[in-house]
Amino acid sequence: MNNEIIYLDHAAATPLDARVLTAMQPYFSEFFYNPSSPYVQALTVRREYEAAKQRLAQTFGAKGDELVITAGATESINLAMGSTSGHIVTANIEHHAVLEAVKKHEHTIIESNERGFITSEAVKKAIRPNTRLVSIALANNEVGTVQPLRDIAAVIREERQHRLSAGNTTPIYLHTDASQGAGQLDIHVSRLGVDLLTLNAGKVYGPKQVGLLWAASHVRLSPQIVGGGQERGLRSGTENVAGVIGFCRAMELAEKHRKSESLRLRTLRDALQKKLVAAFENAVISGYQKHRLPGHLHISFPGIDAERLVFLLEARGVLVATGSACAANKGTRSHVLTAIGLAPEIADGSLRLSLGHLSNEENSTKAADIIIEEVTRERQRMAA
Amino acid sequence: MNNEIIYLDHAAATPLDARVLTAMQPYFSEFFYNPSSPYVQALTVRREYEAAKQRLAQTFGAKGDELVITAGATESINLAMGSTSGHIVTANIEHHAVLEAVKKHEHTIIESNERGFITSEAVKKAIRPNTRLVSIALANNEVGTVQPLRDIAAVIREERQHRLSAGNTTPIYLHTDASQGAGQLDIHVSRLGVDLLTLNAGKVYGPKQVGLLWAASHVRLSPQIVGGGQERGLRSGTENVAGVIGFCRAMELAEKHRKSESLRLRTLRDALQKKLVAAFENAVISGYQKHRLPGHLHISFPGIDAERLVFLLEARGVLVATGSACAANKGTRSHVLTAIGLAPEIADGSLRLSLGHLSNEENSTKAADIIIEEVTRERQRMAA
Repeated sequence: MNNEIIYLDHAAATPLDARVLTAMQPYFSEFFYNPSSPYVQALTVRREYEAAKQRLAQTFGAKGDELVITAGATESINLAMGSTSGHIVTANIEHHAVLEAVKKHEHTIIESNERGFITSEAVKKAIRPNTRLVSIALANNEVGTVQPLRDIAAVIREERQHRLSAGNTTPIYLHTDASQGAGQLDIHVSRLGVDLLTLNAGKVYGPKQVGLLWAASHVRLSPQIVGGGQERGLRSGTENVAGVIGFCRAMELAEKHRKSESLRLRTLRDALQKKLVAAFENAVISGYQKHRLPGHLHISFPGIDAERLVFLLEARGVLVATGSACAANKGTRSHVLTAIGLAPEIADGSLRLSLGHLSNEENSTKAADIIIEEVTRERQRMAA
Repeated sequence: MNNEIIYLDHAAATPLDARVLTAMQPYFSEFFYNPSSPYVQALTVRREYEAAKQRLAQTFGAKGDELVITAGATESINLAMGSTSGHIVTANIEHHAVLEAVKKHEHTIIESNERGFITSEAVKKAIRPNTRLVSIALANNEVGTVQPLRDIAAVIREERQHRLSAGNTTPIYLHTDASQGAGQLDIHVSRLGVDLLTLNAGKVYGPKQVGLLWAASHVRLSPQIVGGGQERGLRSGTENVAGVIGFCRAMELAEKHRKSESLRLRTLRDALQKKLVAAFENAVISGYQKHRLPGHLHISFPGIDAERLVFLLEARGVLVATGSACAANKGTRSHVLTAIGLAPEIADGSLRLSLGHLSNEENSTKAADIIIEEVTRERQRMAA
């Protein structure tokens, strides 16, 4: 019996950071007031809520009054998509939230290349005179490829210039879901060149069911949830004070430690990859190795049944994913792996290993050893 | 300086019950897994989530797989309204969430009577052959009037019968927002006779930004937020495990103590009302005194400026609302008080006192004394 758990699925969920919980705690039962109530205690809560939004926004170069707090990335994405009335461009490796929400609109789905990379040229080709939104996630949640958002933003700026000279007044915006990148990549909105950005507290050691949509001041959003008029009328419902205080603390910590944490995770991931590839020469690494989330490793062991492997590893205390968590419970092959053209026997033998706060040299070395043992045993079993 | 706060605004927000927080705590950083992940730890979280939904549903006579977990009552109401394509009947004293969401549909707004009571006759008159939804809150959040939902449900059953014999296949459903009633009133869905029901954890000493929409199995909902397909495809986004565990515990406690708590609050409220009415013979009690939330007292002191009074009371440690919390920050007169025909000088002198867990005989007697002192002083100031 092995009691120690080695968690290698940070891309699916992250534990709440103890410092984040400490920040949230006073707002559960002491400062629990409705921020819309008229007495000073409630006004103080309102001010603390707005101040937290401001600091949260500053962690990625934005302003507090440009944020809409939501119940997570999926709602943010739906809000971003729902705010446009024209043609949308997105990619076949995007999260289900994007691919489902886009169905309500005229849209073009770009095909990813075999590295899960969306080139700015592909975006350029897909843009039409009536395109209003381009939505490309900063980093793919399955293969970990980081997209060239700055290049895509440049294409969109060019298109704006082109429209201006052609007398076409249709606006065009760039939205990115940066949920998988926050804490590992630079998500400063000016440097990325985006007009809208989605973040999810639950992916950065913050509370679950808290997210945000940032929209630059020139973007007009349409509310999906109407009522009391909270969040500047863009998302009604009593404010999630504890949630936002926690989200703010989580993002402050993420930004503060981003460079060192990225380096740490990259070192651990590279060592893990090296050991696994050394042990299995036919192992396939997916995603763009040069442009990948530092803590992310998507590796396939051709011919192995990854679902069986997940159970075998789980019995040894190593928790990993096959494909994306969102798709995992549906018994279908990942749309991302299909999109990048991974052969079925390779796709079906894939693990997604995502490192994070719970990872360290000792447990990731141990995980590598256990994965090697179990894959070896599976191969022997199948050869027998 | 008075350090003790007497909170009389439970209708706006409730503190998280310590027992609820205890129930939630393990799911923050220990059992933080994404319920869609494939390993046994995540499957256990999935089972606990589904079991909590089941127990939560049972507290009001429903089944777990008939619930859609949302980020609060506002989202639930939007989901309920957004699931219909036909005519909707609602009332002019409903929450802003209903009155805003209904604007996207053909609709009829019933006028409340002067007690904030919606008669089943008024509902009957408003129903048309193409009416698909009637939405009436169980209890009004400002004046506290409890609506005759069983009578309204009977009208809807009659209409169904009528349609059946007329060959009209248009379905008609009854939705109620029971956020203000849970913990004080019977909200068993069969006894109420409703087809859809909204609840809000934040109003019953549960976590904020957690709510649910219950829909009977014969009702077809349309998702507003699409993506990974969680909540039977009706509300995508990674599940709020800690939130639902907390909501479940909060509702279990609410149901367990409902009868004794209702009696306790009614006794406290009646004593408070008696003292205030004895002190000010021109005080006006709004709402339907026979059918009111047990812990609710809406009282007006004609000629007094309630906004000033709120600040004076706050300085004495007594926290009360003027009108509803949702409308309070907009500087406009409450739409409910206007709807029930309260004269402006009476409406502007109104306090909403809502008792709850933090209330007891000592602090509510003390609150009555302080309110009497401050109203007396205001009257003297104005007479001078």
